[in-house]
Amino acid sequence: MNDKKAIKITVIGGGSSYTPELVEGLIKGYDEMPISELWLVDVEQGRQKLEIVGNLAKRMVRKSGLPIDVHLTLDRRTAIKGADFVTTQMRVGQLEARKLDEHIPISYGVVGQETTGPGGMFKALRTIPVILDICRDIEELAPDAWMLNFTNPAGMVTEAVTKYSRVKTVGLCNSPINFKKFLAEAYNVSEDHVLPEFVGINHLHWVTSALVDGKERLPELLQGKTEYSAKNVPTMGWDPEFLQSLGAVPTYYLKYFYMMTEMFEEMKDSLQKNGTRADVVSRVEKELFELYKDESLEDKPKQLEQRGGAYYSEAAVHLMQSLYLGRNDIQTLNVPNGGVYDFLPENASIEVNCVVTALGPIPLVPKHIPAHVKGLLTAVKTYESTAIDAAVSGDRGLALQALAHHPLIPSVSTAKEILDEMLEAHKQYLPNFFSEE
Amino acid sequence: MNDKKAIKITVIGGGSSYTPELVEGLIKGYDEMPISELWLVDVEQGRQKLEIVGNLAKRMVRKSGLPIDVHLTLDRRTAIKGADFVTTQMRVGQLEARKLDEHIPISYGVVGQETTGPGGMFKALRTIPVILDICRDIEELAPDAWMLNFTNPAGMVTEAVTKYSRVKTVGLCNSPINFKKFLAEAYNVSEDHVLPEFVGINHLHWVTSALVDGKERLPELLQGKTEYSAKNVPTMGWDPEFLQSLGAVPTYYLKYFYMMTEMFEEMKDSLQKNGTRADVVSRVEKELFELYKDESLEDKPKQLEQRGGAYYSEAAVHLMQSLYLGRNDIQTLNVPNGGVYDFLPENASIEVNCVVTALGPIPLVPKHIPAHVKGLLTAVKTYESTAIDAAVSGDRGLALQALAHHPLIPSVSTAKEILDEMLEAHKQYLPNFFSEE
Amino acid sequence: MNDKKAIKITVIGGGSSYTPELVEGLIKGYDEMPISELWLVDVEQGRQKLEIVGNLAKRMVRKSGLPIDVHLTLDRRTAIKGADFVTTQMRVGQLEARKLDEHIPISYGVVGQETTGPGGMFKALRTIPVILDICRDIEELAPDAWMLNFTNPAGMVTEAVTKYSRVKTVGLCNSPINFKKFLAEAYNVSEDHVLPEFVGINHLHWVTSALVDGKERLPELLQGKTEYSAKNVPTMGWDPEFLQSLGAVPTYYLKYFYMMTEMFEEMKDSLQKNGTRADVVSRVEKELFELYKDESLEDKPKQLEQRGGAYYSEAAVHLMQSLYLGRNDIQTLNVPNGGVYDFLPENASIEVNCVVTALGPIPLVPKHIPAHVKGLLTAVKTYESTAIDAAVSGDRGLALQALAHHPLIPSVSTAKEILDEMLEAHKQYLPNFFSEE
Amino acid sequence: MNDKKAIKITVIGGGSSYTPELVEGLIKGYDEMPISELWLVDVEQGRQKLEIVGNLAKRMVRKSGLPIDVHLTLDRRTAIKGADFVTTQMRVGQLEARKLDEHIPISYGVVGQETTGPGGMFKALRTIPVILDICRDIEELAPDAWMLNFTNPAGMVTEAVTKYSRVKTVGLCNSPINFKKFLAEAYNVSEDHVLPEFVGINHLHWVTSALVDGKERLPELLQGKTEYSAKNVPTMGWDPEFLQSLGAVPTYYLKYFYMMTEMFEEMKDSLQKNGTRADVVSRVEKELFELYKDESLEDKPKQLEQRGGAYYSEAAVHLMQSLYLGRNDIQTLNVPNGGVYDFLPENASIEVNCVVTALGPIPLVPKHIPAHVKGLLTAVKTYESTAIDAAVSGDRGLALQALAHHPLIPSVSTAKEILDEMLEAHKQYLPNFFSEE
Repeated sequence: MNDKKAIKITVIGGGSSYTPELVEGLIKGYDEMPISELWLVDVEQGRQKLEIVGNLAKRMVRKSGLPIDVHLTLDRRTAIKGADFVTTQMRVGQLEARKLDEHIPISYGVVGQETTGPGGMFKALRTIPVILDICRDIEELAPDAWMLNFTNPAGMVTEAVTKYSRVKTVGLCNSPINFKKFLAEAYNVSEDHVLPEFVGINHLHWVTSALVDGKERLPELLQGKTEYSAKNVPTMGWDPEFLQSLGAVPTYYLKYFYMMTEMFEEMKDSLQKNGTRADVVSRVEKELFELYKDESLEDKPKQLEQRGGAYYSEAAVHLMQSLYLGRNDIQTLNVPNGGVYDFLPENASIEVNCVVTALGPIPLVPKHIPAHVKGLLTAVKTYESTAIDAAVSGDRGLALQALAHHPLIPSVSTAKEILDEMLEAHKQYLPNFFSEE
Repeated sequence: MNDKKAIKITVIGGGSSYTPELVEGLIKGYDEMPISELWLVDVEQGRQKLEIVGNLAKRMVRKSGLPIDVHLTLDRRTAIKGADFVTTQMRVGQLEARKLDEHIPISYGVVGQETTGPGGMFKALRTIPVILDICRDIEELAPDAWMLNFTNPAGMVTEAVTKYSRVKTVGLCNSPINFKKFLAEAYNVSEDHVLPEFVGINHLHWVTSALVDGKERLPELLQGKTEYSAKNVPTMGWDPEFLQSLGAVPTYYLKYFYMMTEMFEEMKDSLQKNGTRADVVSRVEKELFELYKDESLEDKPKQLEQRGGAYYSEAAVHLMQSLYLGRNDIQTLNVPNGGVYDFLPENASIEVNCVVTALGPIPLVPKHIPAHVKGLLTAVKTYESTAIDAAVSGDRGLALQALAHHPLIPSVSTAKEILDEMLEAHKQYLPNFFSEE
Repeated sequence: MNDKKAIKITVIGGGSSYTPELVEGLIKGYDEMPISELWLVDVEQGRQKLEIVGNLAKRMVRKSGLPIDVHLTLDRRTAIKGADFVTTQMRVGQLEARKLDEHIPISYGVVGQETTGPGGMFKALRTIPVILDICRDIEELAPDAWMLNFTNPAGMVTEAVTKYSRVKTVGLCNSPINFKKFLAEAYNVSEDHVLPEFVGINHLHWVTSALVDGKERLPELLQGKTEYSAKNVPTMGWDPEFLQSLGAVPTYYLKYFYMMTEMFEEMKDSLQKNGTRADVVSRVEKELFELYKDESLEDKPKQLEQRGGAYYSEAAVHLMQSLYLGRNDIQTLNVPNGGVYDFLPENASIEVNCVVTALGPIPLVPKHIPAHVKGLLTAVKTYESTAIDAAVSGDRGLALQALAHHPLIPSVSTAKEILDEMLEAHKQYLPNFFSEE
Repeated sequence: MNDKKAIKITVIGGGSSYTPELVEGLIKGYDEMPISELWLVDVEQGRQKLEIVGNLAKRMVRKSGLPIDVHLTLDRRTAIKGADFVTTQMRVGQLEARKLDEHIPISYGVVGQETTGPGGMFKALRTIPVILDICRDIEELAPDAWMLNFTNPAGMVTEAVTKYSRVKTVGLCNSPINFKKFLAEAYNVSEDHVLPEFVGINHLHWVTSALVDGKERLPELLQGKTEYSAKNVPTMGWDPEFLQSLGAVPTYYLKYFYMMTEMFEEMKDSLQKNGTRADVVSRVEKELFELYKDESLEDKPKQLEQRGGAYYSEAAVHLMQSLYLGRNDIQTLNVPNGGVYDFLPENASIEVNCVVTALGPIPLVPKHIPAHVKGLLTAVKTYESTAIDAAVSGDRGLALQALAHHPLIPSVSTAKEILDEMLEAHKQYLPNFFSEE
């Protein structure tokens, strides 16, 4: 592998509070994958954050003693030119928009959340045109680059890129890697000794097999003795009888569907007490950036781990290395369906175990797909694909149809009311829908 | 065709108030399909009704002057022996059970209806074991007979028969024939000049094409100027914008899914004012049987048409004749999917245009399946297939899973509560679930 | 249906010896489908034939007393303009080219035949560009017209049109209608009392069910007592043991595959005695045109029936009427596969029972597909699709690949030799392959 | 992994000349996978060979100093009891039968070969019932054992086991591993740096991608500068133009299909000069066993490598270790299709890249399947599946159908003649076909 050239990485949304984690990961992995240039790029509104976080990045690199050039810029095209990897971690409309995504649906009795339901759809409507605009630059300036997409809703954004651009892309979520870590910890082995099988799409998957040292541990997991949940979703127990009948461990995001009433109630209560998740994150971010400003800080601060996206950067660095080295190891990624699930369209984005080769991920054929998952998967994917087309076209009819078909929406009339209010609220970030103006 | 033998028809649930309509249809169609024996069979609790309706049937036949022997019996095996057609129109638990199916879900904030949701599931749980018991008799005593199933939920009952017996069966609903009549009337042509295409399953289909004299009239229908609804579903307008974006005319039963909130509210109001649909039907039936008792009555009374199942018998006689004569005409029927929809299991029951040959219906390949229908269809079929397995096995876990995956159920915990109460309420009709007792 | 306008029919290759049969059919069917204009169009080389056959057509119409205008022309665009139906019956390169198609392969030990093998491929290579050129005219001048294609290889030509143009097209072969007539005659019923099911593609299908008055007669047919073959294929018995094991009646064209050795030998013998089939046809045609010249002839002469394409025009008129009237009857036609056979591409042309509506044919879902047919079908369709792409692109590599994958070709080296010789022999009709010159 | 118990390996056909290679592999791999017992079992006719080769095995183990017990036995059930791995390398009817498989077809002008064509079919007909008999023992005495099948035709034998038994099985061929070694050598890297993608079934696959250090080298391979062939197939160049148009590297066994004429001629010539391949192998084996007898020999002799099955044992030991250790590495194996190729039946055996987990191999989804491979694959798989059913049932009709559908057979009549002669010739090894006697 010695003849591989040192690489250039471009981070879109480089001013994100997550960036120090990524930088730490790249430094740690330098021996396997040497980086010559790291470009952090952001938009005008994020200039201040970019500088704070960028300077921390520079201090971290300096401390490492490695020959990595860190560039901070608002000039996206220069940042992209010749890149080997482009990562995207952005929030169009910032946390203010997220707040609306969470608040408005709840006022109509519907779950308000930034990755699914009306909130998730509007995040997609705002984000997809921007991502595709970035793709135009990549097609022109770095056609061989891999785009690693972390931007939520990650499945939909990745699907939009594969459908509407020629950019090579993989979608990435920390949910699978979290489950692997949980499993490894629960059985006291290292991570390379566990192999869970995930069936589904981003934020809507079931674990249908859980090998630990070659032994199937699923039946034990279904007894529900070990509770598994991520930090950014309210913990809430699964009904053991239901879990047994499912025959699979649902991801915590499935609680929005299987326990809609309770999740909605908890959300409403929490809103009154703590504000939305956006509010919480807003406070955490403020604190983080205060820390980052400290010129003596030369490492990723511990507090960052509470931020919710733990292990994102580990997953990202891991993926980049396998693509760079052709490591042919197994990772759980968002890729086009192809023929993996015969009940979903071929170009739908799915989240599945893959062997990561130098030419890209190759999905593994799932051993077993429980019949019951097909209904929910098809229903949600129908919503997703329609919403993607709506985002690209700015077609209000498609947006209505997408929302009306979402399993969390009780009625077309509710869909219309939410749609009207949210279109108006996010107007400035939805030029496709308001193009004549 | 002259060498065809005269045939024997057996009506399971012969004491139903619908029977006079069927008798009228058989008399009218005698020239094309001569009947030598008509057996009306019922259970002990229905003895009185059977006698009233059976005697009216005898008077109708006598008036026609045709050589049809009408038999009334409680002995199912004798009635089935050597039959050419067996029709089933039954309600296990009578209207009392229907009342529970409609009341209990509403008390949990969920639609209460006898063909879908928790009510529909429990009607299936009660009915399927009885139907399969009848199938055992048919396999033994009339192995060449066609079973025409009208019993609701017709799609699920038909699927249960094809999965768990060797009986030749077709499921029949009056919804497609009603749409054809509406279309013919709207364009002032006779019914054989219209050809709508139905995509979906029983009580969950969309009209995706509407040929009238070879001209596509769907775009006009989607403008929503003509409102189409059946008698037993509260009329309620579709949102025109939504209809346009669907690109297909949804059946009125789809309002339970697309307009859940409004349907639930209307149901709750109606419950307070008129009682459930079961109560209404109960009153209508009482009046009908009073009429039927009148010894001077020799015809089907006009009032029967208000009963809600208009044209059921026309559909039934039409289907029997095409099977008998090998007429190769197009009818919309519930048959096994085979390869018609690649996103549903091969043995799932679907409702689709068929050419009816003497050997049975052959489905037509749908011209166009809108992407958005796949989600809801797969979700509901997932519920249906799981519920069928629950009915056959008496497995509570499967019943829970079926209900929890039904799109009208907001939460697993609600599913469990409804399941518990309804299992208890219908206990006497669910021996599979309470077998130790 | 009375408001339907009288129609215009355009016959490409109007100077064909078959035309009188078509004219007879149109006259007989006038009451159901009134024709106002019949345009016979041909190329310069066919001028003389066009005049002879055209004048006979005029005499036939005059005798009928019907108000049909018969036009003879070499101006294709005028002929096509505003047409309701365009039929194509052409032979690019005339019988001389057919002779080469039959002779050259035989000299390499390979079957020489104008619908399959190297001969069939070269007929396709010559014909497809011309047909697509006609399609350009139809798209412009008669966009609503149906093109009925009889030109062999009919399946490939039809597939080319659906893949490479927007023209509405149906492919037609007399083989299925011949089988229906045979079946009706064998059981002494009229044709509307028989319903055989065909599985496969043009000239490569199996009859897997044969309903006569609603009774399955396939087992009797498989006993092989009735021999069925068409006039233009040497009669040769099927091995009864093999037929039984197939469980289906193969079309006579399948003898080229199942009995390759014998068919080749018979062909070689026949070549020595009678010349090729092209020679035979050439003699028959000469005689026919002598007859046609007779100014006192006002009817289709009996001798035409020996020509081999019996019932072609019956099939054609039948199809036009059903499209015109929206008759919704069952015909066996060449249409795009869609989802009918899941082992063939969606846009492959297949030959299958269809309901013919005013908007076009709707395929029926086959009841049963024997496993053994999939291998041969996929292999031959692979050849066909590759050859179509070769015809359109003029890519020699594709032509080689198509031929090398044809089951009648023993070796890539043989394929190359035949390809070289036939490309050279047909050079003047293959401008796509020799474009630089 | 330290808690893994030492394992028992049973070699069916232990007297094979290949056994020393396997023993060498097990000794070399002892550190990763400790073996406590090695059972070599054979039939009465092989007693002498078993003793010779078994004693060599004992000497090899003794020299290694490892605590492996080597058992020689004719008692299959004792050998199987409690085994962890059972390998099968047998030839029912010995080399005499192979001679017939090679000679008889050639006398009818058909390729005579022990893995495909009539020869391959008869090897399958003889072998499958014996393998399934062994499976009955494994099901009873070692239900958790993995059966590694090398017995040719490996794809068919493996498919028979998965269809007709509950034994966990994987089929293994040295052809993929040979290609990997060729690729590694050609580019001067170690084997773990190459990743070719194989599309197809055993002995009928195409390499559609060839990653070397993450770089796609297929275009270079298609230029045909490097000739790749195995020892037991006559070397013969591919036509470069054809290779380019294929866009994939065909396995050498595909020459029987793409170059049938030449392969047949070469075979016939070779037969006259050297006798069949069976004769050659017979001589080599004789020499090998002379060597094996030498009591001073304590290692696998170099000459074994000329035997043709090079790297079989490397592949076998590699596979056993990955199953034992759950190594999750990529190997090319014969496994059930599942949903990998949508044009082949789900239970068909295919040869595909798999990740080998402790619970068995998980196939990788192929990146690209050239359209042209589907025809030949479907045709040959149709033959294979039919022949498997024939082997199990002893149904002559199925055997005829299988052979008649094999692409190497020119005519049903030839199929019948070959079938008759070979059934008679192999009568003593085909009890299913001659059961009344």
